[in-house]
Amino acid sequence: MATQPERIAEAPGAVRVGLDIGGSSIKAVASPAHGAPRVIHKLRSQSPGEAVIDDLVAAARAVAAGAPLMSVGLTVPGIVQDGIVRACTNVPQLVGLDVVGELSFVLGVPVTVMNDGLAAALAEARLGSGDAAADVFVAVLGTGVAGAHVLDGVMLPGAHGQAGELGHVRVPESCAPCSCGAIGCLETVIGAPALTTAWERVTGQPGDLKGLQAAALGGHEAAQAILERAAQALASAMLVLSALVDPGRLIVGGGVAEAHPQLPARAAELARQRATFHHLPELVPAAFGGWSGAVGALLG
Amino acid sequence: MATQPERIAEAPGAVRVGLDIGGSSIKAVASPAHGAPRVIHKLRSQSPGEAVIDDLVAAARAVAAGAPLMSVGLTVPGIVQDGIVRACTNVPQLVGLDVVGELSFVLGVPVTVMNDGLAAALAEARLGSGDAAADVFVAVLGTGVAGAHVLDGVMLPGAHGQAGELGHVRVPESCAPCSCGAIGCLETVIGAPALTTAWERVTGQPGDLKGLQAAALGGHEAAQAILERAAQALASAMLVLSALVDPGRLIVGGGVAEAHPQLPARAAELARQRATFHHLPELVPAAFGGWSGAVGALLG
Repeated sequence: MATQPERIAEAPGAVRVGLDIGGSSIKAVASPAHGAPRVIHKLRSQSPGEAVIDDLVAAARAVAAGAPLMSVGLTVPGIVQDGIVRACTNVPQLVGLDVVGELSFVLGVPVTVMNDGLAAALAEARLGSGDAAADVFVAVLGTGVAGAHVLDGVMLPGAHGQAGELGHVRVPESCAPCSCGAIGCLETVIGAPALTTAWERVTGQPGDLKGLQAAALGGHEAAQAILERAAQALASAMLVLSALVDPGRLIVGGGVAEAHPQLPARAAELARQRATFHHLPELVPAAFGGWSGAVGALLG
Repeated sequence: MATQPERIAEAPGAVRVGLDIGGSSIKAVASPAHGAPRVIHKLRSQSPGEAVIDDLVAAARAVAAGAPLMSVGLTVPGIVQDGIVRACTNVPQLVGLDVVGELSFVLGVPVTVMNDGLAAALAEARLGSGDAAADVFVAVLGTGVAGAHVLDGVMLPGAHGQAGELGHVRVPESCAPCSCGAIGCLETVIGAPALTTAWERVTGQPGDLKGLQAAALGGHEAAQAILERAAQALASAMLVLSALVDPGRLIVGGGVAEAHPQLPARAAELARQRATFHHLPELVPAAFGGWSGAVGALLG
């Protein structure tokens, strides 16, 4: 399935590979095996089929592109304990698999694994837009809204591993039911399904974020209102984040931020207008976009 | 002004004194100078007059009660930089004073100083109800609502020193203007002035938290409704705190919690009912009540 990787730089010798397993693709990057992680090859292949390990092996070998493979870092969109995938909604064939043991056995190299959200946050905070800042919050606006507080390069997981759930901060812009069961969460306004549904209600036909963005840029008032309400809701959550956590830098990425690149800046502007005692964090876009998980896998 | 301290235990020799300067009193505690801080004497005297240093010296000597004084820890309800008090709304005669240098000169012992909120949080997290927990949030419900996240005994101040402002989390139970300039902050429902004002509106005459509590316990429905709304608002803030910070233990103290000891537990019950993915922190009352600042001063 995997063919030739995009080559950003020549491999200086042996490589370490990062694999980010998602519901719609495997993203693979290769970095020099020694020194600070740096992406020299990248490759996107199909999401794993039933023969998961075979597909991961193929992706790792393809992105190495002939360079000696020294180690692999893996991310899983779910919960991993002792190398075994315990829960994985989007790639269910991984559940129960000793993914570290099997991949390590076939490739003959060390394999590490971590949660994809953690990997993405660490990539952005340590290698990407958070590079110089000691106190960073990484927010990923996608289907849901994920977040992580990274202090001096270390993620603060919370006592139960649930810290950083920015998407489930209640905002006054919504009283809609959230997939979590609560009411008025940020996700119910700014999550990709919420935006798409709102846009489809306007047009009366199937739509997507791309269409919503094009309409808003073209002056469509209802499209603009949907995005303005999303920006207001994000501003509300930013103010709560600032009051409770007070990060120095807020890195925003994810599919919604990529589709609507003006949205985070507009939210920051609205938050500034509504701020009272708050010192708002500096807003910066995510450096690695959809590749932050794969880059973060290199850090495992 | 200061007379005889309450003696909890005999001084084993030299003592360290903690002084907590407040708008209505100086609270002083003495601890054995060596080993873990432990309150052996305590004393409350009048808030400092114009001769601030004289009053602090008198309080320190009185609480030592004849034991040799080895060092003093001081808390100030304001901002201190390089030993100089830069801002102090409730004790304005402190502003501009080299309180560390002058007190140290007169007493002939080392003097440390810290912010009173930090001192109270560290006291509760390290010596009080947070003792065994690694990840603690301390909330002080008073005129305002102060808070601090203490991880492994160290307070996380945030990038601009404003983290932990639980009182300025927006809650759906309020759309009232807050003293901070925003709308619907937790403080506008559960702050002591908010509760007192709501109760005075019911009775049509001056009231206080004590009267509100007595009426609620006596079955007065409007009094109960005021406290139930405060508990709902605190539950809303607890859910946001849990989603964003995820502390393992929530220590609640302050005058409002002392006047209405059932309120934090009721809020925790409401939060449990409304929780979805949240793992709520264990709720425990503050160990030192109004003395947490003075006890924390011993840690300086």
